[in-house]
Amino acid sequence: MRPANMVCFGWMHQTPALDSNSEIPLYRQLFERIALQIRSGELARGERLPATRELAGQLGLNRTTVSAAYELLETEGLISGQVGRGSFVTGLPSEGRALGTARDWVPVPSARVNWTSLLERGDQGLNAPAGPVSRDVISFVMSRPSRELFPLDDFRASCEAVLARHDLADILQLGSPSGYEPLRRYLLDGARAQGLATAGDDLIVTNGCQQALDLIARTLLRTGDVVAVEDPVYPGLKSLLTGMGVQLAGIPVGVDGIDLPQLERVLARERPRLLVVTSNFQNPTGATLPLASRRALLQAARSAGVPVVENDAYGELRYEGEALAAIKQLDDQSGTVLLRSFSKVSFPGLRVGWALGPKALIDRMRHAKESSDLHTDQLSQAVLLEFAESGRLAAHRACMLEAGAMRLGATLEACREHLPKGARWTRPQGGMNVWVRLPEPLDAAELLSRAQKEGVAYLPGRYFAVSRQDAGALRLSFAGLPPERIREGLAILGRIFAGELEAASLNFEPAPAMV
Amino acid sequence: MRPANMVCFGWMHQTPALDSNSEIPLYRQLFERIALQIRSGELARGERLPATRELAGQLGLNRTTVSAAYELLETEGLISGQVGRGSFVTGLPSEGRALGTARDWVPVPSARVNWTSLLERGDQGLNAPAGPVSRDVISFVMSRPSRELFPLDDFRASCEAVLARHDLADILQLGSPSGYEPLRRYLLDGARAQGLATAGDDLIVTNGCQQALDLIARTLLRTGDVVAVEDPVYPGLKSLLTGMGVQLAGIPVGVDGIDLPQLERVLARERPRLLVVTSNFQNPTGATLPLASRRALLQAARSAGVPVVENDAYGELRYEGEALAAIKQLDDQSGTVLLRSFSKVSFPGLRVGWALGPKALIDRMRHAKESSDLHTDQLSQAVLLEFAESGRLAAHRACMLEAGAMRLGATLEACREHLPKGARWTRPQGGMNVWVRLPEPLDAAELLSRAQKEGVAYLPGRYFAVSRQDAGALRLSFAGLPPERIREGLAILGRIFAGELEAASLNFEPAPAMV
Repeated sequence: MRPANMVCFGWMHQTPALDSNSEIPLYRQLFERIALQIRSGELARGERLPATRELAGQLGLNRTTVSAAYELLETEGLISGQVGRGSFVTGLPSEGRALGTARDWVPVPSARVNWTSLLERGDQGLNAPAGPVSRDVISFVMSRPSRELFPLDDFRASCEAVLARHDLADILQLGSPSGYEPLRRYLLDGARAQGLATAGDDLIVTNGCQQALDLIARTLLRTGDVVAVEDPVYPGLKSLLTGMGVQLAGIPVGVDGIDLPQLERVLARERPRLLVVTSNFQNPTGATLPLASRRALLQAARSAGVPVVENDAYGELRYEGEALAAIKQLDDQSGTVLLRSFSKVSFPGLRVGWALGPKALIDRMRHAKESSDLHTDQLSQAVLLEFAESGRLAAHRACMLEAGAMRLGATLEACREHLPKGARWTRPQGGMNVWVRLPEPLDAAELLSRAQKEGVAYLPGRYFAVSRQDAGALRLSFAGLPPERIREGLAILGRIFAGELEAASLNFEPAPAMV
Repeated sequence: MRPANMVCFGWMHQTPALDSNSEIPLYRQLFERIALQIRSGELARGERLPATRELAGQLGLNRTTVSAAYELLETEGLISGQVGRGSFVTGLPSEGRALGTARDWVPVPSARVNWTSLLERGDQGLNAPAGPVSRDVISFVMSRPSRELFPLDDFRASCEAVLARHDLADILQLGSPSGYEPLRRYLLDGARAQGLATAGDDLIVTNGCQQALDLIARTLLRTGDVVAVEDPVYPGLKSLLTGMGVQLAGIPVGVDGIDLPQLERVLARERPRLLVVTSNFQNPTGATLPLASRRALLQAARSAGVPVVENDAYGELRYEGEALAAIKQLDDQSGTVLLRSFSKVSFPGLRVGWALGPKALIDRMRHAKESSDLHTDQLSQAVLLEFAESGRLAAHRACMLEAGAMRLGATLEACREHLPKGARWTRPQGGMNVWVRLPEPLDAAELLSRAQKEGVAYLPGRYFAVSRQDAGALRLSFAGLPPERIREGLAILGRIFAGELEAASLNFEPAPAMV
């Protein structure tokens, strides 16, 4: 066995170099080579791979290519990355590993637990939006605020205030599945003051909007049910529902939100059990539903007896135009549940959101919450309550609105300047995402590896597609990037897309007659 | 309409007083009277009920009786309690309510969302272990540490250290479904150092053990599956599984833990998909599985190809005897997943636990986690890591062990002194719970309202029963009470139980011959 920490990539010397003209992306070729070495036992379990920067240098590759290969190896369970230590081989056994006992979780015939078979039936072809991207890449991947904008001193002050409280011990004790009562009360009173909550409503605190969606799904859905959703849609909703065996009925989203005639058809034909919509700055399109459409949607859902889940994680982040009444607010028949969150406007690492709706539903969500995880973390609930009540949240939101407006403006301007003729994109009034459609025959998923090679990342439309595949679509999440990086990134993307379009137009030249 | 805040309990004057000799408990009688007034519209929505103390005084009842009636009204959706404000009628509409629009969530024939019908099919006869108990009651209800023992200064110091960190912004940013990486690494390294984790293992941070159970269930189970569990069992597991439509195969738990011959029969006959067991200080019985039984259980599960979920939330709280090897540690065939938590030994309000098991399973749990709530709150993860790494957790655990030993000792001594002849109870070596069986014909559930009237609360065995109803059984959770309160509470219980036993023996006197 070779000494630890020394990995010999034999093929670097024995086989031809990676082929940059191949149709197989470089990262995929690199992945295949390393995977082969692990599977053949040439690389033993526990051995450390070279750092991405090091291997990129040795092979003359871009570092993002190496990172992408490592990520794929990790997804396949062949290596494991450890922060600050590097990546280690963890995969299939080889004769070189140190352990004497057979501890593999690959299938074996009998008299032991066969995880592969046990896990098989739940395998949904797991969603895998890109993982962490290295810091030097211009990443339009994550729909989240910029860490540079976090008001750290205000956060610290809010924590200090909580730590100084005489009832600190109550915060640390087991809590209620409804949420930390002072926060729940604050949110419910706020909702009443805004005319969002009625006397028959109740509110439950959740671990962000994602858990609110999960609790609603657990409460109202079972395998085989149909749910009407936007198409394209937030991938977290898609994977939640498909993971439960729920059928999605996608309703196209245009620049003005969900397509109402299509919605009516789906309600009539598919008889969905639930309609999930985003009223403001939809993820991924950025679209906002106009007031008249909100009313019409509500009427349609009500006539069909279908509850509306109004997913409004981004509603607080309006950079221009008038705020519109929430669907929940327009609903005087208690058919709507509204989801909101602190995550997008403050600190996503603190998982606190809430659902506001009819008491009968919220009661049931509370029971589902208890089964899920007893209750939401109380330290973060108390800190966010203090952050909000002290006025610090409002001050921070003002900064977020200013920064968001600049970033959105930079994105739209750079789209105009750099994207090739025929490209189209949405013009959101808030939120974190712009939706781009490249002209045919460009394929955003195919072009991603080229973009990554040149240091820019985005999510292709297929991550968001329900039933309408739209090869040219991609999402640009702009909120995490300063304007100059946005411009830089779009200049690179524009160059790649334009070049590809030109190459494609050459390929489409009529072929000479065969003689 | 009567002015707000004035509730007239007409029956107080018009009907006979509550009947303390009735077989129907007083709180239930009181509940029925108030419910009738709400349903008849005599009490209008929005009206405030008298404070429990006030009504108890008016009616000559114990305050806990009134509280119990109010709790039941709340469970039924007829009233809603608001901290610091009192309880308000929220239930069925009456002509007296203020709102002009029809906003009820009671069934209506058409053209609106019918929540009652939508929610119907998911109704599992919701589990309802007793809610919050007022502070002057001696409550053996909650299996949780005493808030008086929380090391607040050490907690504050741990928070301060986190707030001072240069990477604070990373903690506040969106995180990974696997957990906050430094904590995950710390826990995994610790598990490796203890010989708990093997090279093929991985670890995921969860919102306490409850969420780990939930993620495993989501990953491995579907409606109609059978899961082998202990009987009696932790109610959070029972409601999680039955809520998913999973069948429970209960295996009796004795003083030495799960009954192995019964386990083998269940494995052979029921072909469960999963076995969930508690190795140490089982909730509710306090039983610990001896080393030889751990090996035998593992062998039986392995032969059946059934994975073992080792739920070990209490393992760190051993007050006497030698620590035993975890089932996970004895398993050299990767068939076990181990669940642990910070909640029982430190701060339950911070929801941080973890699961350690084969990478293939943990990978899948990570995807389920992402659908559930994206990731666990990072502030609490960072604070608990600091609490642990600084040595403060170890110091606190030493205090917890000392206090726990005294409380357990006081409980066992008071059981000997006060419980009637024929009563039996377990003698745990750690954890938070003692299991008591009262002699026949005593019924712990029936006696609860009498105990509550005298200021003592506990959970009757039926909350924990899978298929073996054991009317005389009850759980005493002692960890939250100082020794003098434990003695006081058991003296009261002993008196009630002995009195009831005597009364019962009179009832059982042979009847005179009928002539």
